Amino acid sequence: MRELTGQQVVDAIRAETEKTLEALGGYVPTLAIVRVGENVPQLSYEKGAKKRMQNFGLDVKTFVFPEDVTPEVFFQRFREINADSAIDGVLLLKPLPEQLDVRRAEQMIDPEKDLDGISPVNIARVFAGEEAGFAPCTAEAVMETLRTYEVPVHGKRAVVVGRSLVVGRTLAMLLLRDNATVTICHTQTKDLKEECKKAEILAVAAGRAKLIDRDYVSAGCVILDVGINADENGNLCGDVNPEGLSDLAAALTPVPRGIGAVTTSVLAKHLVQAAARRLL
Amino acid sequence: MRELTGQQVVDAIRAETEKTLEALGGYVPTLAIVRVGENVPQLSYEKGAKKRMQNFGLDVKTFVFPEDVTPEVFFQRFREINADSAIDGVLLLKPLPEQLDVRRAEQMIDPEKDLDGISPVNIARVFAGEEAGFAPCTAEAVMETLRTYEVPVHGKRAVVVGRSLVVGRTLAMLLLRDNATVTICHTQTKDLKEECKKAEILAVAAGRAKLIDRDYVSAGCVILDVGINADENGNLCGDVNPEGLSDLAAALTPVPRGIGAVTTSVLAKHLVQAAARRLL
Repeated sequence: MRELTGQQVVDAIRAETEKTLEALGGYVPTLAIVRVGENVPQLSYEKGAKKRMQNFGLDVKTFVFPEDVTPEVFFQRFREINADSAIDGVLLLKPLPEQLDVRRAEQMIDPEKDLDGISPVNIARVFAGEEAGFAPCTAEAVMETLRTYEVPVHGKRAVVVGRSLVVGRTLAMLLLRDNATVTICHTQTKDLKEECKKAEILAVAAGRAKLIDRDYVSAGCVILDVGINADENGNLCGDVNPEGLSDLAAALTPVPRGIGAVTTSVLAKHLVQAAARRLL
Repeated sequence: MRELTGQQVVDAIRAETEKTLEALGGYVPTLAIVRVGENVPQLSYEKGAKKRMQNFGLDVKTFVFPEDVTPEVFFQRFREINADSAIDGVLLLKPLPEQLDVRRAEQMIDPEKDLDGISPVNIARVFAGEEAGFAPCTAEAVMETLRTYEVPVHGKRAVVVGRSLVVGRTLAMLLLRDNATVTICHTQTKDLKEECKKAEILAVAAGRAKLIDRDYVSAGCVILDVGINADENGNLCGDVNPEGLSDLAAALTPVPRGIGAVTTSVLAKHLVQAAARRLL
């Protein structure tokens, strides 16, 4: 079984963005990170994103608002950030505190700067199978992994476990765009084992530690594990239990160092794309 | 095999809208039909829609523009129609002539009056599995048919053949919202027969006359035929060939007098819903 680590995918994405940056002739795209409050997972994602942008030669501006910011102040500033021609892309860290209507922010974000695909315009583009928009970065990270490791998707039976908007549903549409025959499974699926066994490509974004083991996998299957959970000993683990898969599956993304490691690189790619679409 | 005719579904939808109209205490919702030019299929759909609205006790105003209307004139008027508080719902007949950017119209239509779900806001709602928006009427007509004939969807294996935005993809999301396990098939699907045979509910919106016959169907399957085609003799036929299905399938919608007959009733239902959401 091949281990599809994220680093190789990151390297491939960086090589691609470097070409685009060359075409931009020295222009350095700038990402605006918008954060409200001091939520720990958000701070951690922000730190990772900043490091990745630096590493890709991109700029970051951080806009931090106090937890109790008023809607008036926040949305006026958010509008300005989106309109600022010195900013190429916007990442809004979620969730927002109660007083801020997240729908209003999603509808306000400039679709051409909406790098993580939260605008209805981009969601509609993803659903329609169009190339124009930005899809949420984690779902794109799965597709980048398939591309980098040259896993054929066209005509394959793909099964997606999980139906969140940001991962499961989006990933189903991205696989469909690449001409897979796609099945979406979820907690109400009657015989998850049987469904998963039909998969040539199995993408798991269920958010349940070690939900999928060898009983769910047919020989030769390529497995993408989008889960990030803590196991019974507090260690990081995916939605897939890798034990006993090595002689069965063709390939598996590890957790950690798999899909999760690719997400911020997709964000960087989207930033460079946004700048290129505007300037080239 | 049961024949799931549209009339019974229409009657059920009318009974439902009558209740809502009672709650609206005599208020008569008004549909604005917006048409550019004299395209024959559009005229025919308009005629059917008007008749249905009348039949449901609803008002229609038709706004007709010449084929060569300028974008300035059209979009200003379209904006006014959407803003008009005497209009509860808007149906824009498509396609538009070349000089009119359909994307602009889709983004301009008021999502709360967008009865056929063309606004990105409504498309995003459908994709997210939310109840709030309006889905395209034809896809909803399939769901109304399943509801009227009390076909259970929860936990069932549903296969959708066809991936158009308006029918296939939307229908997949509506079936998923009702907790089916959904597979989307299309022209690039490797073994369509095998995929279809796994279906407990088979919805066909491929746009190919008699694509599906008994070789694609397992015993007890409920088949929804969304196709409207002309056969070799010029007669109306669906995407499903009904020959030899009667001892195999549990149920089938006929063509004509099936799903197609339900679509304008869903439009009427959406109109009444739009009025009720605004006024109740």
